[in-house]
Amino acid sequence: MARLPAEEARRRFAAARVARLATVSAAGLPHLVPVVFAVRDDLVVFAVDQKPKRSADVRRVRNIADNPHVCLLADEYADDWSRLWWARADGTATVVQAGPSREGALELLLDRYEQYRADPPRGPVVVVTVTRWSGWAHASGG
Amino acid sequence: MARLPAEEARRRFAAARVARLATVSAAGLPHLVPVVFAVRDDLVVFAVDQKPKRSADVRRVRNIADNPHVCLLADEYADDWSRLWWARADGTATVVQAGPSREGALELLLDRYEQYRADPPRGPVVVVTVTRWSGWAHASGG
Repeated sequence: MARLPAEEARRRFAAARVARLATVSAAGLPHLVPVVFAVRDDLVVFAVDQKPKRSADVRRVRNIADNPHVCLLADEYADDWSRLWWARADGTATVVQAGPSREGALELLLDRYEQYRADPPRGPVVVVTVTRWSGWAHASGG
Repeated sequence: MARLPAEEARRRFAAARVARLATVSAAGLPHLVPVVFAVRDDLVVFAVDQKPKRSADVRRVRNIADNPHVCLLADEYADDWSRLWWARADGTATVVQAGPSREGALELLLDRYEQYRADPPRGPVVVVTVTRWSGWAHASGG
């Protein structure tokens, strides 16, 4: 396994269709969910995809309010382990309920996922400012 | 999406080839890596797969020493979102350097992954005692 350059990690992450989001509760408990997302420069955005009045109850939103540090991982598994790779984004998250920042994030998401074009997310979006891109692959050229 | 019964979440998780492990540092930062693993009853085991003398430096091992709470996620992504599902294991982790508990975990791992039979992990194993299995799927029957 070889470490991926940050730009290559960012490129692979941005091309993935799904990532996993880790948040941490006030009590220090980790929480994981899969997310569909979009990347622009060093921002990762995803929708909470919940009715607005219920969104404060969603655990990842509560965790981000208590601890903005998040980690996102995209990876590819293959039974041929020489093809494994993963790319990780570490950063800080902000929940955006409304306004131009939410609209911009939704535009990126609708652009990537036709499922969202058919039925746009109604809840808040989360904007993650990535402070570190990293990753590993067997062959860093892929 | 419908919540999966705990037993069904456990079954789907146990059948997955890869999961993502979230740990939390002493400073409250989340960390994610993909892991290959095995499940027996309410235990999830995986290898750190590093030379023993270097294993104390591995971030997930350091994090578990500081905070034993971990979260593991297995999920299946499909562009047809009606086929999405995920299964999550919340629990507490112990790093096992040697002894029968490590041997038992290695046996489960070698049984599942021929890559490990060809080249068994030399480092410690991590044993997670799962306190909660959960998950979501569009159709819970799958």
